[in-house]
Amino acid sequence: MTTTPAITPVLEAGVAQARSLLPPMLREQVATLGDELGRICGYQLGLCDADGDPLHGCGGKLVRPAFSLLCSAAAGGSADEVLPAASAIELLHNASLIHDDIMDGDHARRHRPTVWARFGVPLALLAGDALIALGFEVLGGHRHPATASAVADLARTLRHLAIGQEQDLRFEREQGIGIEDSLAMLGGKTGALLACACRMGARHASAPPDWTDRFGRFGMHIGVAFQLVDDDLGIWGDPGVTGKPVGTDLRARKKSAPVVAALQAGTADSARLARLYATPGDLTDTQVTFMADLVEGAGGRTWALAEADRRISAAWDLLDPLDLDLDARRGLVELTTALTTRRY
Amino acid sequence: MTTTPAITPVLEAGVAQARSLLPPMLREQVATLGDELGRICGYQLGLCDADGDPLHGCGGKLVRPAFSLLCSAAAGGSADEVLPAASAIELLHNASLIHDDIMDGDHARRHRPTVWARFGVPLALLAGDALIALGFEVLGGHRHPATASAVADLARTLRHLAIGQEQDLRFEREQGIGIEDSLAMLGGKTGALLACACRMGARHASAPPDWTDRFGRFGMHIGVAFQLVDDDLGIWGDPGVTGKPVGTDLRARKKSAPVVAALQAGTADSARLARLYATPGDLTDTQVTFMADLVEGAGGRTWALAEADRRISAAWDLLDPLDLDLDARRGLVELTTALTTRRY
Repeated sequence: MTTTPAITPVLEAGVAQARSLLPPMLREQVATLGDELGRICGYQLGLCDADGDPLHGCGGKLVRPAFSLLCSAAAGGSADEVLPAASAIELLHNASLIHDDIMDGDHARRHRPTVWARFGVPLALLAGDALIALGFEVLGGHRHPATASAVADLARTLRHLAIGQEQDLRFEREQGIGIEDSLAMLGGKTGALLACACRMGARHASAPPDWTDRFGRFGMHIGVAFQLVDDDLGIWGDPGVTGKPVGTDLRARKKSAPVVAALQAGTADSARLARLYATPGDLTDTQVTFMADLVEGAGGRTWALAEADRRISAAWDLLDPLDLDLDARRGLVELTTALTTRRY
Repeated sequence: MTTTPAITPVLEAGVAQARSLLPPMLREQVATLGDELGRICGYQLGLCDADGDPLHGCGGKLVRPAFSLLCSAAAGGSADEVLPAASAIELLHNASLIHDDIMDGDHARRHRPTVWARFGVPLALLAGDALIALGFEVLGGHRHPATASAVADLARTLRHLAIGQEQDLRFEREQGIGIEDSLAMLGGKTGALLACACRMGARHASAPPDWTDRFGRFGMHIGVAFQLVDDDLGIWGDPGVTGKPVGTDLRARKKSAPVVAALQAGTADSARLARLYATPGDLTDTQVTFMADLVEGAGGRTWALAEADRRISAAWDLLDPLDLDLDARRGLVELTTALTTRRY
């Protein structure tokens, strides 16, 4: 019998700050939704259990608000100024999780039933809409010179999330998806919201427009790198650590980035992998392990991890010329490193 | 054989203006969604058919934007100033129609398949999200002093729509729903968006805050009256005119306002109606006609139509003290009268 090492999550500075500042604001927002929607949205946010009984803290890691807080501090802003925007980002993130779980038919998230699995599709759909409403309400109600541009940015980001998710659904069915398509989809699905989180930080710190743009491109690169690492874990992650079965994404025949890279490589392994992807029916553990080996053999894994490294490097190239607050910059390095070297 | 009278819709001034001004802006917005989501959202808005081929004009009647335009003109504003807000209202209205049709399992709307029935639930869900995004994008991107407060208002309205729809879903299952619950639900489901449409008009005309509030309460009353008339047509509407089967709402055992009033009246007919509502299984045409008679016998129809009249009267009490543009005021009277005396 093997023992699984206990996970002792280290809270990076930005995450610790987000976890102390956000839950009170999120609780206040959710309380405006009435008993039923309030309970369901609180459940998704990890503020309460399915019966509405309060939980300590917040279920999500609050990575995106942590980026908003750190980017704001890096650009010389205060946490107070960016907090409503950070909350708005977290509310929209959770809305998209609820809606994506409906679309993907996923039953579990964060070791609990997904919202639709627990409360049914109609209420889950409404809960997602309600969280979008709260996001724009907390952002639009913030008296700050950046509010109008922040709202337009958040709306544009929500549009890109929808387009990214549409591509993700379509790519599952389509043949011949290229690496560029795949990266564009990752940019929409994961990059766009992290880019927005980082722009909010710079914008609410009243940094020059050039800084806002740079922080946004920084966030986009980090978001894509984060998703590439996630795709790697979806194939090669240790089930004892990730809490998901071996090769989840292969089993669902997801066209994640390493798979697309492998399929496009034109090797004998690529052709074998394509045949297995085209064959319907459930896969055995042996087949899943064989497919993972094919992705690796065709160079998909190496490409994806190298692309993640390139993205992180490109991200820092954007911020390095700026005169940032050093503590906050260190926090950003810590958080970025933790996200892209994680095993969970 | 009886002949159904041809419907020759008369376009009230506000509606005619909305139909000439909105479609170009809506087309531009929808074009930013990419081919697939753009086509689906264009289909919902009546801008194109299901294959993406353009249609003339716009499928919806554009009642809500017409109220924004008329209220703006009544308060001395220009159409240009309020147009982005009017578009935002129409975009959110269509988002809520798409999502409500998923929740209610409705197959047809405006004589065409609903979005989920035509494109499947996942894409319908995303299309609704995309329309919400576009609504906030067009409003947030509008350079106008009222933008920040308009965004907060639109977000609050989206929250009230979600709460109203949640109540509607819950009331179908619950016993003992009172008239006040029912009116509150109508206020959320239909009143909130019309109230917001009217507030947008006053706000973008830079009218005093007191006017914005009055126009909002005016819109809320009109919205509730509109829904009460809709509930009446859902039971007693002529199928040849409404395009829906006789007694649609009774067949679905909807707790519409006339039914709630009848159930609460404490008469012998109320008790008979309650028993029929509690009996599962499909209803014959004879049973549906009998139920309609019970609702009428218990006073539900009289109450609902009297309440609609009270609402219209209360609505005008709010605007009558104001010094409004007379042409626009006449347009508001025309439109309000058309909506609350319609037979379709």
